[in-house]
Parts: sequence; structure tokens; C-alpha cells
Amino acid sequence: MSKFLINKYQSLEAYVPGEQPKDMEYVKLNTNESPFPPSQGVLDRISSAEVSKLNLYPDPDCKVLRKKIAELYGFESENVFISNGSDEILSFAFMAFCSEEKGAVFPNISYGFYKVYGDLYGVDYTEAPLKEDFTIDVNDYLNINKTVVIANPNAPTGLSLSVDEIEKIVKSNPDNVVLIDEAYVDFGGKSCIELVKKYENLLVVRTYSKSRSMAGARLGYAFGSKSLIDDLNRIKYSTNPYNINRLTLAAGEAAIDDNDYYMNRCKEIVEIREYSKRRLSELGFDYLDSDTNFIFAKSDKIIGEDYYRRLKENGVLVRHFSNPLISGYVRITVGTREQMDKLFEVTEKLLK
Amino acid sequence: MSKFLINKYQSLEAYVPGEQPKDMEYVKLNTNESPFPPSQGVLDRISSAEVSKLNLYPDPDCKVLRKKIAELYGFESENVFISNGSDEILSFAFMAFCSEEKGAVFPNISYGFYKVYGDLYGVDYTEAPLKEDFTIDVNDYLNINKTVVIANPNAPTGLSLSVDEIEKIVKSNPDNVVLIDEAYVDFGGKSCIELVKKYENLLVVRTYSKSRSMAGARLGYAFGSKSLIDDLNRIKYSTNPYNINRLTLAAGEAAIDDNDYYMNRCKEIVEIREYSKRRLSELGFDYLDSDTNFIFAKSDKIIGEDYYRRLKENGVLVRHFSNPLISGYVRITVGTREQMDKLFEVTEKLLK
Repeated sequence: MSKFLINKYQSLEAYVPGEQPKDMEYVKLNTNESPFPPSQGVLDRISSAEVSKLNLYPDPDCKVLRKKIAELYGFESENVFISNGSDEILSFAFMAFCSEEKGAVFPNISYGFYKVYGDLYGVDYTEAPLKEDFTIDVNDYLNINKTVVIANPNAPTGLSLSVDEIEKIVKSNPDNVVLIDEAYVDFGGKSCIELVKKYENLLVVRTYSKSRSMAGARLGYAFGSKSLIDDLNRIKYSTNPYNINRLTLAAGEAAIDDNDYYMNRCKEIVEIREYSKRRLSELGFDYLDSDTNFIFAKSDKIIGEDYYRRLKENGVLVRHFSNPLISGYVRITVGTREQMDKLFEVTEKLLK
Repeated sequence: MSKFLINKYQSLEAYVPGEQPKDMEYVKLNTNESPFPPSQGVLDRISSAEVSKLNLYPDPDCKVLRKKIAELYGFESENVFISNGSDEILSFAFMAFCSEEKGAVFPNISYGFYKVYGDLYGVDYTEAPLKEDFTIDVNDYLNINKTVVIANPNAPTGLSLSVDEIEKIVKSNPDNVVLIDEAYVDFGGKSCIELVKKYENLLVVRTYSKSRSMAGARLGYAFGSKSLIDDLNRIKYSTNPYNINRLTLAAGEAAIDDNDYYMNRCKEIVEIREYSKRRLSELGFDYLDSDTNFIFAKSDKIIGEDYYRRLKENGVLVRHFSNPLISGYVRITVGTREQMDKLFEVTEKLLK
């Protein structure tokens, strides 16, 4: 830290991304990436001709991509916001809709970045405890008069609220934004985007990083009422108008054209997830009933941190969280069948 | 605007990027892009193999690129920060080093975004007037006890301060950050990056958007003392750790390997700029003595706004600013020789 950093950021604790060690080739099951490459249409679209236009600025309004996403999901372009990964939307939304006066509430076990944004923007936030079974208690979010932020399905638990429960929360907080982070919804969760047409206070955030095999391209999108999207644009055009580069825009457009490819890959992930649950059961693990591309699992035979560490020694990366409420667990990304079999093979060896 | 937007942003005036009309093919001389494509090494690097790895997150630390940039310019990696366009560094720096208590000062005619960042982050800023000849008055920045932000060469004037003048400013403000925005330095300005080794309060910001033909890739970088770079990383890891996508990282690395290509293109731009100045003189224009890839010019025969408008009607885009101090001028990006000849051809016709 320099002596020039202004006071309010001096105690800020930044987000810690999942590790990306380079010391060896790992079976990488720690950051919830898709194990599948982007579709052929994306590969074809990023041609030399496309790359040779990099001297020109991208379209800051992302017109073509917004239209494609809007059409796929039955919205107008004015209801769609595009960002440099969904983290950027979360950052803009915390900035635009939360403050010291207008507080925020989110689960005490969820995506770790919500707390970081809360601290960064000086938001008076509350972390509502999950129930003992790791589900969200809807009552904690009703008539709360704060900005509500919920990942649905939640991470790292993988558990979902129903659309009816989300609607109750949205309806009971008409003077506050309810942000539903649907990063993992394509793996079996139920999306609440249809509620956007009914409630002006609902913002639904999505990402290309998981179900669309594009964590490396950095592309997020959100659905909301025109006025909410206008607010996000005001922040975007006051921080970084050209936030999406040309190649990511092009890839994002091609991926929408190839939507079937991605939805089929999601089905494949779900099948591998269900297979993996069976294998984990056979190995004596407990796990939560995931609607996502990861499984939150623990074993009585090995504590979470040891399991994580010994897997890593054996070339398999999973994610472990030190929060004592969940430190018994590890979060295992669903990879290919071969990757999962490698995990089970190592696990079997470790438990012997 | 929604009713949910917090008070302090309700009167925010966002930045307005240069127009990108799609109604026809224009000779585009309005956003200071390079007219040349990226180097062959960049085209080769963005291969199908590279694109097919987009399912994986990029390296948030940008280790390889930081090392390459550090080596090219004689720094250590710890002195280099990488961002999603240089606008993002500016945004982070205003956030980290300015506040209501710690004010900022920048020229009243400069990159329009400084004012937007000032407003966004609630900074108490001063706009120091340029002298009548549009040069910066160094005295306005000495012992000022505020964060100093200067584009050098300045935009849209194209005029530079000397390294000695920059050093005076840096030396006289030891308790404040001095940010020098060198977006246009590769076209004949004198860089002050060597001073970074001597002064812990100097941050020098650069971009791939102009001299490296990559406005479309969104890539900026900065040099500073380790502690200043650490501060910027603290903000980055609290907003958007994966801010640079894989393809932009790869392109940025390949461009450093091909540095000669870009420096030769810069020489070509400078030659075309000098040719263009002669042609503008012949057409009776006045212009400032640009160190950049644009020329700030005016004519007694046609006012700036009319000239801009009539050029556009004839398929040539330049940029006009409505600020009354400079509304007589237009800013003309230096394009290819053919593009410039088209501009002069249309101008001749208009002045007849």
C-alpha cells in the first residue's frame, strides 16, 4: 500500500480468485469453467479478418449482441445490459443501487464478491444466515427495504430458490432493487427472467463463463426494466464505455447463433454431475443437491482442507473455503467424464 | 433513470464517446485509431487453438504480458499494471488517489473523461486554464497539494510538456500522485517513464489503442512504483479481477514481440502528419504543432462545427468539441495518405 491511497480503501480486503497454479498440468475442477471448448461458430467467427480490424474501437453500445440476446430470451434490446464479465455488472449494481443509507442484504454463504463490493462502495450490508440445511430462508428477504442480492442457484451450495419464492421477495421490496445472479442457472435451475417483464425492480445477471464455455472471453449480461438498464449504462459510460473488446463481442454473437450446441453441452454436464453424485455416494461422501455445474461435497473420513490439499498433490484441483461454516466441504466443478474419473480414482486411493 | 439510483449519481454526466455512425462507409478520422491493422504476429497468435481455450479463465495477474512490457521498457513486472483499456486505469486511479478531501487538478482543455471521473467519485477537482497558445502553464501544478492529472501530449491540442517540466511538477508534489497520461506519446512526444524509477508518486499511463493498432482489443498499461501498482491492484481485485480476456492478453503479448512493426507504423503516421500539415497550410488552415496522431486545426473560412458537419455529409468523419474555447477547431486523426487526400479533396471543394 502507498501513502497516497485514500483512507477508505486502506482496510479493503480484495476478492481472492480461485488459484491457477502453473507448476504442473492439473485436472482443473476448481473455478467452475466448462470443460468444453466454444462452438465451431465461435472459432470460425474469430478469423484473421476479424483480428485485423482490432485497430478500430468496438461498438460501445454492443447493439448487435444486445439484440441477439434480447431475441433469444424474448426481450427488447433496451432490457439488456452487456459487461466485461458478470462481475462488472455486480460492481456497477452495487455502485448504482446500494449506499450507506440504502443498505444491502445477501446470504452469509454465497459468492464471496458480494461482501467485497459492499466494502468497496461503503454499503451498509447484512449477511443473512442460511438455514442449517444450507437453504436460503426467504423470510430474511421479505419487506426488508434494502437492496437484495441472491445467487440462484446459490454458490457454493448449488441449491436453488423457486421462481415463486423469488417473486415473493421481489414483490415485497418494491422500493428496492432485487438482483438475482443466475450465473449457474443453465444447469437445471429455474430462471426468473420472465418476472423482469412484471417488476421494474428486478435485475437478473447472467454470464458466458459457465454454460457458454467462455470464461476466457469475459462476457456477462443482465435483464432488467429499461430504467434499471439506463442506470447501469450511466455508470458504464462514466467508467469505461468501451468495456467489451471486439473479439469478445464477435464471439458472444456467434455463441448465441449456436445456442443449441451450448444447451446440449449443459445437458451433458448435468449427466456427468448425476453420475458423479452416484460415485461420490459410493465413496461415502455427502453432498448438497446441486442445480449447477459443481458439487459441494464432504466426507466423514477426510476433512475438507486435507482432501483439497491431497487432491492437489495428486494433480487434481478443487476449491476449498476456509469459512468455518463450510470448511468441511470442497466445491468440485463438474468436468468431463474422464476428469471426474481421475478425481474418483485419486479419492479412492486417498481414502484407503 | 430509475427511482432506485442512489442520489449522488442522479446528476452524473457520462462521457460521450466519438460517434460511430453505421449509415454509410466513412473515412474515419474522428477517434484517433491507427489506420493500420495489428502485426502479423498478432494475427498468427489469435489462432483457432487459442480461441478454443476460451472456456478457461484468463490469468488475472497477467504475468506474461507484464513481464514482456517490463522488459521492453526496462522495468520490473511489479512496476507494471495492466487494464481493460487505459480508461480503466484512469478510473481506478481517480478512485484510489482522489477524494473530496484530496482534490485533483487537470487542464480545462484535455481528455474529457477526467472531469467525468472527478464527478463520479465525488472528487473536489480544479480545471486549470490553458494559456492563450493552448500550452499548459506548469506553474498551475507546482506545490499544489492535489492529485495531478495531465495528458502528455495533451488532447485535443497535441501539444507536449518537456520531461523537465513534468519532473518539476512531480518533485514539487511529493505527497500526491502525479498521473501522466501518455496515450499519444509514441508519435513524437518525450516519455517521462524514466522518472518512475526516481519518484514514488509518478504514475504513467499508456494504451495499445493508438500506436499499437489495438483500440478494439482494449488494453492499457501503467508504470509506477511498486506501492502505487499495489494500490491499483487492490482496486482491480475488488472490482473485476479477470478484467483482461485471454485473446487480448495473447494479442498484447504478440504485439510486444513485434514492437518494430508498430514503431515503424508510428514513423509512417508522423510522416503523413507532416505532409498533412503542409496541405492544411496550403488550404489556409491554422493548426497546433502536434506531437500526436491527430491535428487540431481551424480555418478562418469555415467555423469548426460547419466544417465537421459538411465533411460528414461528404463521407469524412472528424471530431468537433462544443466547448466554446475550442469550438472553432476540429480534431483530425492522421489516417493513411489516401484517407488524408480524401479529406483534402473534400475540404478544397467545401472552401470553393
